[in-house]
Amino acid sequence: MIDHLIDRIKETENPTVVGLDPTLVMMPGYLKKQMFEMYGKTPKAVAEMFVEFNRRIIDEVCDLVPAVKPQIAMYESYGPDGLDAYIRTCAYARYKGLVIIGDIKRGDIGSTAEAYGGHIAGVDIEGEHYDVWKEDCITINPYLGVDGIEPFVKTLRRDERGIFVLVRTSNPSSGELQDKMMEGTYMYNQVADLVSKWGKDTIGKYGYSKVGAVVGATHPAQGMELRQRMPHTFFLVPGYGAQGGKGADLKGFFDKDGIGCIVNSSRGIIAAYKKDPEFADVENVGPEFAEASRRAVLAMKEDLQNAF
Amino acid sequence: MIDHLIDRIKETENPTVVGLDPTLVMMPGYLKKQMFEMYGKTPKAVAEMFVEFNRRIIDEVCDLVPAVKPQIAMYESYGPDGLDAYIRTCAYARYKGLVIIGDIKRGDIGSTAEAYGGHIAGVDIEGEHYDVWKEDCITINPYLGVDGIEPFVKTLRRDERGIFVLVRTSNPSSGELQDKMMEGTYMYNQVADLVSKWGKDTIGKYGYSKVGAVVGATHPAQGMELRQRMPHTFFLVPGYGAQGGKGADLKGFFDKDGIGCIVNSSRGIIAAYKKDPEFADVENVGPEFAEASRRAVLAMKEDLQNAF
Repeated sequence: MIDHLIDRIKETENPTVVGLDPTLVMMPGYLKKQMFEMYGKTPKAVAEMFVEFNRRIIDEVCDLVPAVKPQIAMYESYGPDGLDAYIRTCAYARYKGLVIIGDIKRGDIGSTAEAYGGHIAGVDIEGEHYDVWKEDCITINPYLGVDGIEPFVKTLRRDERGIFVLVRTSNPSSGELQDKMMEGTYMYNQVADLVSKWGKDTIGKYGYSKVGAVVGATHPAQGMELRQRMPHTFFLVPGYGAQGGKGADLKGFFDKDGIGCIVNSSRGIIAAYKKDPEFADVENVGPEFAEASRRAVLAMKEDLQNAF
Repeated sequence: MIDHLIDRIKETENPTVVGLDPTLVMMPGYLKKQMFEMYGKTPKAVAEMFVEFNRRIIDEVCDLVPAVKPQIAMYESYGPDGLDAYIRTCAYARYKGLVIIGDIKRGDIGSTAEAYGGHIAGVDIEGEHYDVWKEDCITINPYLGVDGIEPFVKTLRRDERGIFVLVRTSNPSSGELQDKMMEGTYMYNQVADLVSKWGKDTIGKYGYSKVGAVVGATHPAQGMELRQRMPHTFFLVPGYGAQGGKGADLKGFFDKDGIGCIVNSSRGIIAAYKKDPEFADVENVGPEFAEASRRAVLAMKEDLQNAF
């Protein structure tokens, strides 16, 4: 999957992943009206809004970007209906040729980690196989150590799938643990070394392993150091745009060939219509709201050209 | 919720939480047969097995234990149908008077953490409130720092809910990060200090805060040290039974009044029928399989008497 992702980045000349993190507040008025009328003020109504909202955005951006990253929490809030909307979003994005990075940040051990492994491995029921979640890659939390990673790596050795392990997150308080000194270096460096080790048997044709790392755009200097420390690890980079990261800050996240990372933007792309001068009448915008997302992707692509 | 949980522990004189972590392999033959006939070899069939299996166990143990801890991963493998079974399990256990500890180990930041917060806070849809997940407490991963915790603590200040933050997990490789030295002490001590700080505004009538800690039974010496280091933090203790922890090892996890922790057992209780001499014919056992779980709970209660 890492090779396929890099192929797609080269084709689109755009290392952007669109974060599909919808919220109720973000929904255009026409969609709210429609779904509330059909389903009442229920989780089902919100789930149906999210599916339709995402489809419109996917239609507008699928020729411009290699991948999407739906954030499962946004759907999980609404229970099984919401998670059904998450899966339908993944299925549609895959149908449109996009790589799906499920931002699920799971992490557990043994049989439990194996159960979470179903996200990328699917589930077998007495001989019948189900690809329940429709994700190609997922994000993983490393706090429990290799017991929490090994069940996923087992899948990666067999299937074209990928994982991204949290190393240096983009949020302000991420340093409370990650920046502390641990045995002579920063803790995130210790995690980085584990991630390199976990991935070393799964390196593909571009020199990158199937075990990637999450490294926040809000830490440019650390990103550059980590790029050198883990030359075979592909980066998923959150924190661009709304959280403050800029294209020019990201030079160090790429390798000398201009690959090595994919940069996520969520609100900046999917809620772009709210700030687009063409939609001055935000309250009455129709399905054309998604055109603003296309323009936002093109602007981000241009901004990232400065970096790679 | 922490006060209510301790009340229930005192009433039952039993600091045991039953881990409701069903797997397909664990299902009695009659249940498999029934559900496969009704729904085919589908995720829906497995989900219906899990609900029925859990109901039988809850019926047998609800007067003996204060709480259950369903592990969401086991249900999540089977997609929205599985998660619907998880919620129906929580709802039934609550109806039978049990405290629900959702073992979800979520951890994220900002608006995403708020979305996960829906597990205990519910979700509002334009004035309508839904308690979608039916959990009283959940487990949380601390890797992202306080940004990932604050949205939950906000709920705790307002509602009778609880969280348990991973501090020292029970798995063999947990030490890869947690046991490393960080600024003069073990990393898990650093996390312990953060957990104490995060909980300090939410201390209840027994002196325990609503922000608990997960501390594995497989580390008795560390459990005792942590009991002293965090006197206002209630412990959720995994790793008893199948993972090797014994009642006698747990003395140090309790305070001088014999409270301070709740000990989880999953397989040892819910799959007890497979090892119970009364059910020599494991293949043909009927709904009475759950009686073995009752006996396993009583044996565990006796074993824990040694500790508190």
